[in-house]
Amino acid sequence: MTRSVGRIFSGFRCFGSLPFGNPPLKTQCSSVLFRTTSERTLMHALPKIFGRKPRDFSLPNSSWGKEMMQLYNHYNRLSKETTEGQEDHGEQWTRLPSYNRTLKYATGGVYLSKIIQSKARLFTRNIRDPGASFEYVIFFRQDKLKCACIFQAGHLLEGAPGHVHGGAIATMIDTITGTHASLLSAPVMTANLNINYRSPIPLGSTVLIESILDKEDGRKRYISCRVTSTDGSKLHTEATGLFLSISVSHLLKR
Amino acid sequence: MTRSVGRIFSGFRCFGSLPFGNPPLKTQCSSVLFRTTSERTLMHALPKIFGRKPRDFSLPNSSWGKEMMQLYNHYNRLSKETTEGQEDHGEQWTRLPSYNRTLKYATGGVYLSKIIQSKARLFTRNIRDPGASFEYVIFFRQDKLKCACIFQAGHLLEGAPGHVHGGAIATMIDTITGTHASLLSAPVMTANLNINYRSPIPLGSTVLIESILDKEDGRKRYISCRVTSTDGSKLHTEATGLFLSISVSHLLKR
Repeated sequence: MTRSVGRIFSGFRCFGSLPFGNPPLKTQCSSVLFRTTSERTLMHALPKIFGRKPRDFSLPNSSWGKEMMQLYNHYNRLSKETTEGQEDHGEQWTRLPSYNRTLKYATGGVYLSKIIQSKARLFTRNIRDPGASFEYVIFFRQDKLKCACIFQAGHLLEGAPGHVHGGAIATMIDTITGTHASLLSAPVMTANLNINYRSPIPLGSTVLIESILDKEDGRKRYISCRVTSTDGSKLHTEATGLFLSISVSHLLKR
Repeated sequence: MTRSVGRIFSGFRCFGSLPFGNPPLKTQCSSVLFRTTSERTLMHALPKIFGRKPRDFSLPNSSWGKEMMQLYNHYNRLSKETTEGQEDHGEQWTRLPSYNRTLKYATGGVYLSKIIQSKARLFTRNIRDPGASFEYVIFFRQDKLKCACIFQAGHLLEGAPGHVHGGAIATMIDTITGTHASLLSAPVMTANLNINYRSPIPLGSTVLIESILDKEDGRKRYISCRVTSTDGSKLHTEATGLFLSISVSHLLKR
């Protein structure tokens, strides 16, 4: 059941298809690209890889509404960068940068035409028009091993009239839980997502997505998350994710 | 726990948020828009609603590759329209049209600004560039109550380098299983999606997504589906979906 293997990209925590012996261990890596616990480390490494500094989509733009900005400012005030040399607030959050492209030579172990390779973009960042689709920023709190994501849903994410598509919500859940799992130790691959939709999310609104680590069992990471209104009073979606950490030696078995 | 209610659109089978008493019955409607068992009925109704005939994204375009076209031609030959007046092949498939917009007055029961309303587009059809994101067509076989979807994944759906994002796969699964559930009886809302990722899907490739009805229990519809290579030899993803059928009287309770 050996599959082709994604090439290894130093400093990044996500890989393509991987070889697994048993079906439950075969997984789909989603959007765990460019994940690191240290934004500054990554930002130092990126120019060497890309040639020039790419746009960081996790920074505020003119489309961000009042709720998005309020929550962003809240977590940013508690971030490592802001609190350095200042009073310790007891919370240590780190904002994670977010880009829209993978490396040009990234083939994930499969043959892709040059055209597809050069045009490929991360699914959640494939529309450059600010505010049109996924506007989000993820913060990570290392001491509590939890993530918080602020997500503003644009008008191009419609499912039911006036509401966010269930697939767009699943995409954000995969992004947050996968990022969370990859931050804990090693590169990961998504094995399972179990999503319960409780109440729809109106198009254009901002929600909070929080994830926690439920359990670690060998290579397995069990992450759960909740999508709520920004004040936490209304539950929109609940989900669990199972991720498998991948060792470098595993990746080298082709 | 009453929620706002999506307005009712005659001839369509998907609605916005709905009121339910118990959390497990609160759901997220996704992409079950414009679903009908009769394309011709819908196509007659659409011009009156839209003013002019909208683009049907389920028809072939120049980006469709060889595998996509071969499977499309296979199912199209077995479709109702093609077989009328011809020999009965024993299979009766119906191609389902697919559009990128909801009605302008569709608010889903929630307040949306005029700007968001006018710009809103169905998530899976929000990029007009042929071949860039989701290229798919769904066929329905009423006598066996099953669906078959041919899906070609564009370069803007990337997750792991060279592979389709797990969220994009979840989006297609939600689309197919939700469509299937809505075709069986009444409008539906997605309550749960449980997705097992078995092996990654290379970017640019074409896959087959087949869904079957597992069980009906009152208002509940249990649909399962498999994402495989076009010849069925390789399993990429398995999933189950739980959907709740919604009665018109239910919709009117605001």
